[in-house]
Amino acid sequence: MKRGFRFILAADVGGTNIRTALIDPQGMVLTVIKRPTLAQKGKDSMIERLVRMLEDTAKKYGTRLEKVEGIGVGFPGPLDAKKGVVFSPPNLVGWFHVPLKGILEKKLGRPVVIENDANAAALGEYWKGAGRGAKSLVCLTLGTGVGGGIVLDGRVWHGAKGIAGEIGHMTVIRGGRRCNCGNRGCLEAYASSRGIIARMQELLMREKTRRDEKITMERIGALAKAGDRQARRTVEDTGVILGIAIANIANILNPEVVVLGGGVSNLGDRLFDPIKEEVKKRALPEAVEGLRIVKAQLGDNAGVIGAARSLMLCLDKG
Amino acid sequence: MKRGFRFILAADVGGTNIRTALIDPQGMVLTVIKRPTLAQKGKDSMIERLVRMLEDTAKKYGTRLEKVEGIGVGFPGPLDAKKGVVFSPPNLVGWFHVPLKGILEKKLGRPVVIENDANAAALGEYWKGAGRGAKSLVCLTLGTGVGGGIVLDGRVWHGAKGIAGEIGHMTVIRGGRRCNCGNRGCLEAYASSRGIIARMQELLMREKTRRDEKITMERIGALAKAGDRQARRTVEDTGVILGIAIANIANILNPEVVVLGGGVSNLGDRLFDPIKEEVKKRALPEAVEGLRIVKAQLGDNAGVIGAARSLMLCLDKG
Repeated sequence: MKRGFRFILAADVGGTNIRTALIDPQGMVLTVIKRPTLAQKGKDSMIERLVRMLEDTAKKYGTRLEKVEGIGVGFPGPLDAKKGVVFSPPNLVGWFHVPLKGILEKKLGRPVVIENDANAAALGEYWKGAGRGAKSLVCLTLGTGVGGGIVLDGRVWHGAKGIAGEIGHMTVIRGGRRCNCGNRGCLEAYASSRGIIARMQELLMREKTRRDEKITMERIGALAKAGDRQARRTVEDTGVILGIAIANIANILNPEVVVLGGGVSNLGDRLFDPIKEEVKKRALPEAVEGLRIVKAQLGDNAGVIGAARSLMLCLDKG
Repeated sequence: MKRGFRFILAADVGGTNIRTALIDPQGMVLTVIKRPTLAQKGKDSMIERLVRMLEDTAKKYGTRLEKVEGIGVGFPGPLDAKKGVVFSPPNLVGWFHVPLKGILEKKLGRPVVIENDANAAALGEYWKGAGRGAKSLVCLTLGTGVGGGIVLDGRVWHGAKGIAGEIGHMTVIRGGRRCNCGNRGCLEAYASSRGIIARMQELLMREKTRRDEKITMERIGALAKAGDRQARRTVEDTGVILGIAIANIANILNPEVVVLGGGVSNLGDRLFDPIKEEVKKRALPEAVEGLRIVKAQLGDNAGVIGAARSLMLCLDKG
């Protein structure tokens, strides 16, 4: 009989905050620490911070690094998960082709796995969240940007260069809005919070409506709920665009579940209804049949749970 | 040591012709028979025909059904490859939820595997054609329709309901041309021979050009080669649209190779150049880096070779 897993340390590194957790082999989060990333202090200081947080997390639960199976780290991409090298995350200055896995293994003395943060969230939702029990899942994290992760038969599909799952950069409107990636018409230019806020502001301007308030995602959600026509239209359009993208995914990959996470997914049925309608219109009947399009369930813990799972799959103790 | 494979019988069933072949375990085609499908004679007669062809193919090479490992059959989808059930291929009247695998196994007395024809072509190109040596491949068969197949780590990705790979029904132009599937703006509505011919005819009409000849794919190719402006524009537009679709595939799946087969792929560089340009414009650098976009190599044998491979993977004798 194979020896089972002990506890796993996991981290979810974001541009604003780092979250670390101690997780048991069943995916239960035992303890969590959250601290600001302070990315502006530079790469080395950020790595030191991450190491300290991982040590503190173990300590907080009364254990030590030597007692954990290893460390799974969700990190902003693009990165090469196999080699554990971070390429050049757009929101982290000074990070360029950093062999993070090697650096952390040396500092921590335990096996480390690095996974793209959106992939980690997808794997977390697959393992313990909205995708529990499914065989295949696609997860879209709708935040400032749009991250994507694909899980097929229980494993993240990374692709040839580790870039697979970049669904945020699917072209949905040829010649459409300019995206941060330099291209036009990407899903991210419409369905990220940044894209949604910009579209709402443009709609207000076009219709010469003046609002003496800051337009935020929360505000758009509240306005839509209160019946504001322009907010409703903005949210509905977002749903239609997401529906086109998800119909494409359904036709291409025919997954069992599509999970939507991130702040934008809090818009609720006002977002999900037009998505489902558009998917039904555009995807083949066999691809729609049985397809679940659902909200993420793990909230801020999806990343650490998925990162822990990545480590388990890598060590593969059955 | 596991016993290796013996010869495999394979069939590629199309709306017009059926092709059967005897194939060795290295993927070498030993003998081929091609006969008209005669789909209008009905399902039972078509199955009888297929069975006779398989027997004749074995005989032609001087062997017998009992001596072959089994039979791999590429068949028009949608179908459930796992269960071996054909749902309702649009070009084959009278076929509705037919358990073809079971029927053939009973008649032939050997193991049978049914695979979607576009998936079989993709697997064939992966194994012995343009994708040889790659780890992941997406194949588009550009014929009357647009078929697609996805091979990841050596196996066809079927998805939850067996419908994965229907890349022809990816929306590329929101609100665009009407597709046979009932939707608008599908890749197939632009990049199938039907779509290309229709677009050429519309361009001629729009520009009030009269041509006393039948517009066919071959004719468009010849005209483009001869410098005809309208034919060139039609082909180039096709490349741009295909480029959008392939960029999406590159961002989502990050495959090593994209293979284009079918009659339309014979348009050569006049088609491939705008495709590559558009992909470079729209896909993330890491997804384009190292991506090969190439013409299929196996011609009409891709389907039988892939169907044979499907059988081998199913019996899995290492």
